[in-house]
Amino acid sequence: MLASYYQGHKTFTLGDAPIVSPGPAQVRIEVAYCGICGTDLHIYQGHMDKRVKIPQIIGHEMSGTIAEIGADVKGWQVGERVVVRPLDPCGECPACRAGHAHICQRLKFLGIDTPGAFQGSWTVPAHTLHRIPADMPLDRAALIEPVAVACHDVRRGGVQKGEFVVVIGGGPIGMLIAMVARHAGAQVLLSEINPHRLALAADLGFEAIDPRQTDPVALVEERTGGAGADVVLEVSGSQAGAAQMTQLARTRGRVVVVAIFSFKPEIDLHRFFWRELTLIGARVYEPEDFERAIELVSTYAIPVESLISDRRPLGALQNVFEEIEAGKNLMKVLINTREV
Amino acid sequence: MLASYYQGHKTFTLGDAPIVSPGPAQVRIEVAYCGICGTDLHIYQGHMDKRVKIPQIIGHEMSGTIAEIGADVKGWQVGERVVVRPLDPCGECPACRAGHAHICQRLKFLGIDTPGAFQGSWTVPAHTLHRIPADMPLDRAALIEPVAVACHDVRRGGVQKGEFVVVIGGGPIGMLIAMVARHAGAQVLLSEINPHRLALAADLGFEAIDPRQTDPVALVEERTGGAGADVVLEVSGSQAGAAQMTQLARTRGRVVVVAIFSFKPEIDLHRFFWRELTLIGARVYEPEDFERAIELVSTYAIPVESLISDRRPLGALQNVFEEIEAGKNLMKVLINTREV
Repeated sequence: MLASYYQGHKTFTLGDAPIVSPGPAQVRIEVAYCGICGTDLHIYQGHMDKRVKIPQIIGHEMSGTIAEIGADVKGWQVGERVVVRPLDPCGECPACRAGHAHICQRLKFLGIDTPGAFQGSWTVPAHTLHRIPADMPLDRAALIEPVAVACHDVRRGGVQKGEFVVVIGGGPIGMLIAMVARHAGAQVLLSEINPHRLALAADLGFEAIDPRQTDPVALVEERTGGAGADVVLEVSGSQAGAAQMTQLARTRGRVVVVAIFSFKPEIDLHRFFWRELTLIGARVYEPEDFERAIELVSTYAIPVESLISDRRPLGALQNVFEEIEAGKNLMKVLINTREV
Repeated sequence: MLASYYQGHKTFTLGDAPIVSPGPAQVRIEVAYCGICGTDLHIYQGHMDKRVKIPQIIGHEMSGTIAEIGADVKGWQVGERVVVRPLDPCGECPACRAGHAHICQRLKFLGIDTPGAFQGSWTVPAHTLHRIPADMPLDRAALIEPVAVACHDVRRGGVQKGEFVVVIGGGPIGMLIAMVARHAGAQVLLSEINPHRLALAADLGFEAIDPRQTDPVALVEERTGGAGADVVLEVSGSQAGAAQMTQLARTRGRVVVVAIFSFKPEIDLHRFFWRELTLIGARVYEPEDFERAIELVSTYAIPVESLISDRRPLGALQNVFEEIEAGKNLMKVLINTREV
């Protein structure tokens, strides 16, 4: 069976991988598609070499079919279509004991801390599985994981019907957050500087602005009768975004930090005091976010297919990372793990 | 009647002030005591000269007795002891309409934007009054306003019985927060660098550390079985405090911004993401915070008297500000407005 191995130094190599028989509490999945996450790009760029054991098979935004079932696993059948919630918590740390196992203090993330899904066959703990409808296209299903991220972010922000929401940053996660928030009944404004992403957002029916050309604060004040946005989701990871998020929110408004900041930005804490704002960190997802994502994606409630830029074979993974890094306009590339 | 006038340039002058008859919705109060707030110190230092109309009578941490009642005011009697919640909201802005009048977008703060209580007689809107017990000492009652701040901060942080709370900064507000949180059943750790304040905290029975000598993060981890603090209240307004607050909080912990930051600190937003922390801004108080403060102070539930460093006559106001600025160890100085 083939797998793509991250070797460090911005290099993936195609190689053989053993088929791993499932342990008693595991299942083996024939992987269909696996998308590329922003975290995978960080790994490719070497930013996570201290954490990732090289060589490593990465990848976690996947879909597939159950191929083999461990002895103690109940409730699953060979042939069922599934996605994996790639979190393996310890169950014992204070976060786990407090009911926050998704952000366990010793969390193992499948595809980062353990082998991932850029291979034809993937063996995982059965507790990570979510069932998807039997007739669901498996390429579309590979978007469930990032949609679950967006569902978690929107839920953490408490977005309500009729609220005014600003999403700062229109990459795949920002775009999915905008879709999920709009589906929840919010009025959404997207702020993004890349013209291709702006055009895509406009195609999807969002009001989308370049903050260097249109002042988002003035626009939001105009749209909200001088109040400000109910919820702001910061997905850009930039100092500019971190500065705008506090200016955009209304009195008692909520700001959700979705981006993974690689530096410590300057934050207007005075504004938090002045308007009694709330800042909410959001990371990965809980089981209910996956269930919600499966519902939204399988019922075509949100147009996730618009984000699929390309489908490529496993052997092209190296090329795809090079294209993303070179700034080619790719939103979400799905890797077909059965093709070379 | 005498008043102390802020004249700019770190100068207060004692002068005559007219007795202002109450308008239809106002009452006139004979002021007994008025404490000095951190904001008053900012005014003295000239930081708020753009906002404060010079010359101005400032001061708002007061207690007194009703002397005269406006024609349309119901429910109050001459001679009743009262404190004033010094907020005059517009009633029309988005924040007021959303039920957050205490942080009205056009809020007038009595004693900053309008004349204050460093005078023998103060005329204010009747809606700002809170009744205090007839037998309550008026010096003690002058501490109700800062206690209401602390009650609001603890309430915004959702402090529960049995929770571990860290207060960063042990000035008067930090110390009152520690008292209110402890009274709510929390275990409180106070972090402060001033040795006199540390000694006072220890006298009051708090575990109090100098973060330059004892690592607060290691200590809190030890105290909480590796979890971290449930609630951290940042009252220092310093970069060091802003850095520590994110390190101290547990997974899904709450961080309350109480300090008025005069600069934009660098904030570890990655930590908000990683532990799904919540940051909560807290400003002034709502009516229920005043009622709670009156209850706590009048029943001697918290030892506020320990914070009273001195009682001085109105004519000494200039000297007191000079002493505070010179670093004399004063927690709360009460000005007796009837004495010169």
